[in-house]
Amino acid sequence: MLINGIAGDQVPLSDRGLQYGDGLFETLAVINGQPGLWQHHIARLSRGEQVLGFPPSDKQLLKREALSLCAGHERAVLKIILTRGSGGRGYRPPASSHPRRILTLHPWPDYPNEWYAKGIRLGICHTRASLNSQLAGLKHLNRLDQVLARSEWQDPTIAESLMLDDRGRVISGTQSNLFMIHGETILTPDLSQAGIAGVVRELVIEQAKQLSLPLRITDFVLDDVQQADALFVTNSLMGICPVAILDQYHFNIEKIPQKLHQAVDEILRSAL
Amino acid sequence: MLINGIAGDQVPLSDRGLQYGDGLFETLAVINGQPGLWQHHIARLSRGEQVLGFPPSDKQLLKREALSLCAGHERAVLKIILTRGSGGRGYRPPASSHPRRILTLHPWPDYPNEWYAKGIRLGICHTRASLNSQLAGLKHLNRLDQVLARSEWQDPTIAESLMLDDRGRVISGTQSNLFMIHGETILTPDLSQAGIAGVVRELVIEQAKQLSLPLRITDFVLDDVQQADALFVTNSLMGICPVAILDQYHFNIEKIPQKLHQAVDEILRSAL
Repeated sequence: MLINGIAGDQVPLSDRGLQYGDGLFETLAVINGQPGLWQHHIARLSRGEQVLGFPPSDKQLLKREALSLCAGHERAVLKIILTRGSGGRGYRPPASSHPRRILTLHPWPDYPNEWYAKGIRLGICHTRASLNSQLAGLKHLNRLDQVLARSEWQDPTIAESLMLDDRGRVISGTQSNLFMIHGETILTPDLSQAGIAGVVRELVIEQAKQLSLPLRITDFVLDDVQQADALFVTNSLMGICPVAILDQYHFNIEKIPQKLHQAVDEILRSAL
Repeated sequence: MLINGIAGDQVPLSDRGLQYGDGLFETLAVINGQPGLWQHHIARLSRGEQVLGFPPSDKQLLKREALSLCAGHERAVLKIILTRGSGGRGYRPPASSHPRRILTLHPWPDYPNEWYAKGIRLGICHTRASLNSQLAGLKHLNRLDQVLARSEWQDPTIAESLMLDDRGRVISGTQSNLFMIHGETILTPDLSQAGIAGVVRELVIEQAKQLSLPLRITDFVLDDVQQADALFVTNSLMGICPVAILDQYHFNIEKIPQKLHQAVDEILRSAL
């Protein structure tokens, strides 16, 4: 664990990450000592810094610290938290803030092979995704909606559940992004008002373009999801994970474009 | 500073308050060693515990700790933070959580007498209030929208600014609740989808009822605010604070019902 480059496992009470959720985070898959999709994660972190008005952090330094922590780990999870640091008066940030960067390493979650071979079962959450167009897409520290959503089920046969917003639009899973296949078209929710724009989601969008596969980012409701030919969810740890069942609806995981799936898997394996 | 009753000024990185904003807080006005509006604050904290699925905290213990910290302080601010503690797997809370209670004491903010005698100047924020009907009203730790809103202005002649939601409804100030006087009627925004239901807001609603003054909790837009006869904002530290100016609109602070103002001030002064 590194806090501003120094070994440590505690933060001051005054940290604005604790006080207000005033910060950002990234969760990276570590493969053979390398944090995966580094550029994608850093791009999102930088967007977050801009929106939150943080001074841009030193990405070279962050990379060195990440590599030192990941060294010797074949498979692990690296979490980077960047808070606005301490100070300010109430909600008002200090005139010049000194963000606190926190790097921690965690065990790799061994997802069952079955998830990938047969597809997972999805549930639907009652908890709604928070709506805020300024904060949407960012991986910021205000994640209470997802915490409440994830606490809704204990059934281990349900791997993930969908979150809708207050207007009934499907946003994402509690910790993943959602893709649907309708005929030849790939669809994924518009995240301009809610949700987190995942790095693997972005990779899927990029690779679909590379492969000239039609992909639309749009609003849709639960009915659209239920009538899809195939579904998959993505995040930086699980990669692309096909969906077999949502409620009483069954999906054909064979309808997920193989070229796309392979291209994304390849990139994730090579820890680009 | 007390953490679970023990003097301390740091929390572990694993605290879910830091990781996800998974917690609640209360900010209390301390008068002559007593935390003000204790029952109101505890009622809101308890509602938050229920919604977040925390085991109910020991309110007697909390009171003892609060009193020990406040003892000897004529005027101060007591902040209580209650996080879900450490543990769990990702967003998923642990099966049985052990919330962490954090009590800190801060200097009393000496608001200018002029604010009360002449009324304050209000601005309008670009940052929108996050919408989430399940979390609305609670004083939880996901406050990034208010942080961004409060960072919008540096001009010290603007004491507070209004926040709207993405649908254009007026929700509150960045750190206060809003009341309007239209003729004989007192109006305050419906907070069932966004905002924090402040303890002084609740006190105003209670006292208006006691005094048989007509008060409506409803949705309204900026036009409604601009056309009001009078405006005031409330929070646990500033109490009732009249508004003189919003943009180019001027308001008559004499139109704020004196009986109501006095009744609320009396209760706040007596630290009930």
